[in-house]
Amino acid sequence: MIDGRPFGAVYAARMRIGIAGISGYTGIELLRLALGHPHFELTWVGAERAAGKTLDSTWPSLAGTRYGSVVIENLEQTPAADLAARCDVLFLALPHGIAARRAPEWLAAGLTLVDLGADFRLKDPAAYKAAYGLEHASPELLPGAVYGLVELNRAALVGAKLIACPGCYPTAVTLAIAPLVRAGLAPQRIVADCLSGVSGAGRNPGPRNLFCEVAESAAAYGIAGTHRHVPEIEQTLAELGRGPVDVVFTPHLVPMNRGMIATVHAFPAAGSLPSLADLRALYAEAYAGDAMVVLVDAAPGTLEVRGTNRIFIHVAVDARRGALTVVSAIDNLVKGAAGQAIQAANIALGLPENAGLPLHALVP
Amino acid sequence: MIDGRPFGAVYAARMRIGIAGISGYTGIELLRLALGHPHFELTWVGAERAAGKTLDSTWPSLAGTRYGSVVIENLEQTPAADLAARCDVLFLALPHGIAARRAPEWLAAGLTLVDLGADFRLKDPAAYKAAYGLEHASPELLPGAVYGLVELNRAALVGAKLIACPGCYPTAVTLAIAPLVRAGLAPQRIVADCLSGVSGAGRNPGPRNLFCEVAESAAAYGIAGTHRHVPEIEQTLAELGRGPVDVVFTPHLVPMNRGMIATVHAFPAAGSLPSLADLRALYAEAYAGDAMVVLVDAAPGTLEVRGTNRIFIHVAVDARRGALTVVSAIDNLVKGAAGQAIQAANIALGLPENAGLPLHALVP
Amino acid sequence: MIDGRPFGAVYAARMRIGIAGISGYTGIELLRLALGHPHFELTWVGAERAAGKTLDSTWPSLAGTRYGSVVIENLEQTPAADLAARCDVLFLALPHGIAARRAPEWLAAGLTLVDLGADFRLKDPAAYKAAYGLEHASPELLPGAVYGLVELNRAALVGAKLIACPGCYPTAVTLAIAPLVRAGLAPQRIVADCLSGVSGAGRNPGPRNLFCEVAESAAAYGIAGTHRHVPEIEQTLAELGRGPVDVVFTPHLVPMNRGMIATVHAFPAAGSLPSLADLRALYAEAYAGDAMVVLVDAAPGTLEVRGTNRIFIHVAVDARRGALTVVSAIDNLVKGAAGQAIQAANIALGLPENAGLPLHALVP
Amino acid sequence: MIDGRPFGAVYAARMRIGIAGISGYTGIELLRLALGHPHFELTWVGAERAAGKTLDSTWPSLAGTRYGSVVIENLEQTPAADLAARCDVLFLALPHGIAARRAPEWLAAGLTLVDLGADFRLKDPAAYKAAYGLEHASPELLPGAVYGLVELNRAALVGAKLIACPGCYPTAVTLAIAPLVRAGLAPQRIVADCLSGVSGAGRNPGPRNLFCEVAESAAAYGIAGTHRHVPEIEQTLAELGRGPVDVVFTPHLVPMNRGMIATVHAFPAAGSLPSLADLRALYAEAYAGDAMVVLVDAAPGTLEVRGTNRIFIHVAVDARRGALTVVSAIDNLVKGAAGQAIQAANIALGLPENAGLPLHALVP
Repeated sequence: MIDGRPFGAVYAARMRIGIAGISGYTGIELLRLALGHPHFELTWVGAERAAGKTLDSTWPSLAGTRYGSVVIENLEQTPAADLAARCDVLFLALPHGIAARRAPEWLAAGLTLVDLGADFRLKDPAAYKAAYGLEHASPELLPGAVYGLVELNRAALVGAKLIACPGCYPTAVTLAIAPLVRAGLAPQRIVADCLSGVSGAGRNPGPRNLFCEVAESAAAYGIAGTHRHVPEIEQTLAELGRGPVDVVFTPHLVPMNRGMIATVHAFPAAGSLPSLADLRALYAEAYAGDAMVVLVDAAPGTLEVRGTNRIFIHVAVDARRGALTVVSAIDNLVKGAAGQAIQAANIALGLPENAGLPLHALVP
Repeated sequence: MIDGRPFGAVYAARMRIGIAGISGYTGIELLRLALGHPHFELTWVGAERAAGKTLDSTWPSLAGTRYGSVVIENLEQTPAADLAARCDVLFLALPHGIAARRAPEWLAAGLTLVDLGADFRLKDPAAYKAAYGLEHASPELLPGAVYGLVELNRAALVGAKLIACPGCYPTAVTLAIAPLVRAGLAPQRIVADCLSGVSGAGRNPGPRNLFCEVAESAAAYGIAGTHRHVPEIEQTLAELGRGPVDVVFTPHLVPMNRGMIATVHAFPAAGSLPSLADLRALYAEAYAGDAMVVLVDAAPGTLEVRGTNRIFIHVAVDARRGALTVVSAIDNLVKGAAGQAIQAANIALGLPENAGLPLHALVP
Repeated sequence: MIDGRPFGAVYAARMRIGIAGISGYTGIELLRLALGHPHFELTWVGAERAAGKTLDSTWPSLAGTRYGSVVIENLEQTPAADLAARCDVLFLALPHGIAARRAPEWLAAGLTLVDLGADFRLKDPAAYKAAYGLEHASPELLPGAVYGLVELNRAALVGAKLIACPGCYPTAVTLAIAPLVRAGLAPQRIVADCLSGVSGAGRNPGPRNLFCEVAESAAAYGIAGTHRHVPEIEQTLAELGRGPVDVVFTPHLVPMNRGMIATVHAFPAAGSLPSLADLRALYAEAYAGDAMVVLVDAAPGTLEVRGTNRIFIHVAVDARRGALTVVSAIDNLVKGAAGQAIQAANIALGLPENAGLPLHALVP
Repeated sequence: MIDGRPFGAVYAARMRIGIAGISGYTGIELLRLALGHPHFELTWVGAERAAGKTLDSTWPSLAGTRYGSVVIENLEQTPAADLAARCDVLFLALPHGIAARRAPEWLAAGLTLVDLGADFRLKDPAAYKAAYGLEHASPELLPGAVYGLVELNRAALVGAKLIACPGCYPTAVTLAIAPLVRAGLAPQRIVADCLSGVSGAGRNPGPRNLFCEVAESAAAYGIAGTHRHVPEIEQTLAELGRGPVDVVFTPHLVPMNRGMIATVHAFPAAGSLPSLADLRALYAEAYAGDAMVVLVDAAPGTLEVRGTNRIFIHVAVDARRGALTVVSAIDNLVKGAAGQAIQAANIALGLPENAGLPLHALVP
């Protein structure tokens, strides 16, 4: 056995996968994970601006691999039929709007779509427009899109053809607080203060990702309900709980490449504060079948999950102040993006759920 | 005029100052500021373990200055009378316990004490023992110690002989939330999630300050009311407000040398949520006379205050969720420690309040 | 095919491996790579000071894996026969001196030893004593130890029982310059200025690895031939070339976790400076059969090789100044330590040379 | 006395200064230093693209200072006469080409020009064209421009009207090696490998200054004599020595905001290698009158000079290999740019040389 995988096992299944949006940080992370996946064969890579360049000119780290000289194709100019002839599954790591516009033709061509963007996360097209400033191009697809937060939505993902992968913050916050919401221990309002590494700001240059503006600095942004991930979190919590839960959400940018911390507070009704032992038992039961969720006794550092698809969760009770605090740590590019997308796709495709997903962090 | 200071002004006052605890990060920051202070003459430096070494062997950055070859004296072995013969004011940047034990003799010798440690912050010796695990050695001095949070306590500092400088987190949190507490807009409970640079963990090696354990990582610690700064914040807010305010406090360590963010949430009673304009007006009025407090329209980054004694405060209203969010940014070693200590000392000594305090950040 | 490996291949060979020194950065990197190795089964982990603790208390990143609760054994107290009963191969990531002392008994018990420390690198016991300040405990083993710089020593590694893995700097410098030395293009003297991430300074706290002393700083150290890696590099180059080559070597510490750059200059005799095309051809030929060596057209960044066993090499000609400059980039913990050790062990054990060695970097 | 300055001294001189190029990192550093300068009054700030914005919208750190609301003026559209009516001295922190084009009118209007760019560094217009790709617009001014490397050129700076401030690398390299060149101990060729913080890459977004591309990475660039600073260094060394000195120069970018290390090697003729004592004496004598040059016994870290105008120099002898190694450390934005410019201007203007120049580093 090599860490749980039967030694030398021969898997019959093989899926041909494509990555649209290979020039961004989520795209390259999808590629890294796809290349290590026992059932994936990477057969197509595309982008918008980077089209026509080789992979190793966009990502020098790929020099000397057999993918380095592969030419990035033009997403916009590739007909759906061609894509479908070359891929079974298409991972979409694109700015919002594109997937909503192109999904109908891709689905019609028979592709399974795993969208890492925002286009199919919100069920309500009006909420989408409010958050993203665009009329949704394919609202008819929204009811059928499956939200890819595996630990909460595993059954629905089986056989899914259109997966809406959660945002990074919603992943970290929702998994941290879901057991409390379900148990009625997070009534009315939670507070979620989150920290993200700079890769979350994307690869396009701007004031939030220049080295000298970010290194040695830390800052909040998207304060007071203005971040686009808020309606997404509230949508999921409303489904989980006994009515709406307000999420007072504040993201912060901190000077590191990867990693995300969600520190989430709930305030149970007077008299219903659980003991620490009960709280731990609640979480242990909630995530009993989830290999990617690890309950830890000390507040986790993001380095501990770097490069992995795992989420570390730590729970605490402030009995004097009637508060429960839950801290989760993920790698925003893995469990918060590319890894979770593959985890959801594995389920959709009937593969072992954790195939190809790293468990061991790159430390230090 | 040079930035508000009359050009070429001759100030008559000159104070001889000593720094106890010169080998730590707060100590060297006190030295940096003291050397630029128009009324301070540095006349004594001492420490415990570093005693007997030259300043430039402890701090290579001092090589070639006229202080580099100064030998660090032994704090424990220096009689109070000798100290008082050489200094007017003694700044104490020491582990807790020492100041409480030695303060009586130093005060008796005539020294003005500015304690940057924790010994005189909490008015209740029982609270001190609960937080620091020590019986307070001089509880009789607690009533007379003046809490050095200048913006809230200016009048009491005039002529003070024993100043208890606030902790870094209490500075950032209390100044962020005080106007709300005073206005009754932070009833019952606030949530304060804070970020600190690594210098806050001190200079003694440990798992929280090794480069490879911290760089590329971020983590919460001291969760659920266990951090020693919680009773200090709650003590101040109780004095400001209309009764006790619970502080749900979670500090985080992030990979940068300096800097602190406090993101503080308050939940006004239903129907009493102010508009953003009213909120801004409330803060503008609260800090109208405070040169070190700057109200900013965008969430501040810590780099913007690096090396300065200023606190940047940004306020926001999440009307949909009934929450007020206030974000403050300070340099934990300046406004959170050495700078605020000097600001308080300036007042105590009858000097211009802002003498020697940097306003312009080191950017980038 | 998954990146060159036959899909679903069943390998018959399986080696039981042990790691001595699991509490250091090289130890945990060995573990990460061993767990992904198709022919390795990790069967023993030991240390000195960390003995008795669980793996996940030493490395929180291992929480929730099947190794997390494994107890670290006491290296000193484990008899060689017990070790040999449980392992085929022992990887040694230890301070110098221990391997030299214990190797005879371990070898006698039948273990294959892969030493990542310094004890068997220098052929001359006097040079060892001069560099490390210790009388070598087993000089009789030195002639039989095989230097594990795979690309230069592949044939000798087949079947080796005692492998002396190169230091990180010697790996980066020697591979960068070896083709020039062999071609007579680096006569007399080379200059090698190198940059290392902080993990190279190890996990024991000290002034060179505290976050606040290192972040935002860069510094040379071990100047003017005083670094212990100099005799190792000179030994290899003397064997490769036509006589001794002086190595003017200066390492620098830079604020990053991992990564190493070697910038190496050679000064061919007047009239013998090659053209850039000839220089590239020389390197292409020298490393034609080496999957881990990648010749790149632009100076490489360490991020491009992070987490991989690859070395990126860039060559340049300064015709006006008669100099050749070669820049190499490695991950100091992989190609500079754990990865190269596995690569050498693979050859010694008759496994595919690159089995278990990552090619795809963690970017960003 | 406050660190060497007579307490309460009243200086008569006051100079009105302007800064052109305020939106870049050198511009804001000039502003920081100018505001602390006892003889400077900042009376004009201008830029190209940032014109029309307030200072605090470009530099949020200036919020709440009396300069925050100052509007950045349009350099191109400001007539020379207007500039001269409002300033005595104009500091130019501009892309190359602009100063060369505008200098004649500015000089004619009576302004003293302190150019931090490249336009007046190279005496030979052909060399300028070769390095910068532009025909020099005012070659007639080149003979009269004074190179602002104060320690080597102090006398010539007195009364200068057009100062060409050295580049950052030339400052660090030239001061490190000048004593050896003058003494004939650096014949024929030196090797200079240098490290720079990311602020040296400027504030315009690009692959070399995005956080995620730079953090956790280090890389050489401008290899093999292609960097524009090489002819500048060689020009100065040729003037100092006994003929041309080849400079084999390789800059590296390392993940920190500020700071620069120059590691420079010289190879004295056989038999003329000095002892370490003699080497130290040579440097002590060379820089006996230079307050900004500090000779240190250990290799300096850049943190030790951060924010200061000082250069730390460490010398070493590798007797076995016939090499001298000199390591210097500066803050690239201070001694490498803004600070040195002010130091040169002080001399030109008849002010105390070190007025307004910080000696005490921001540590940590």
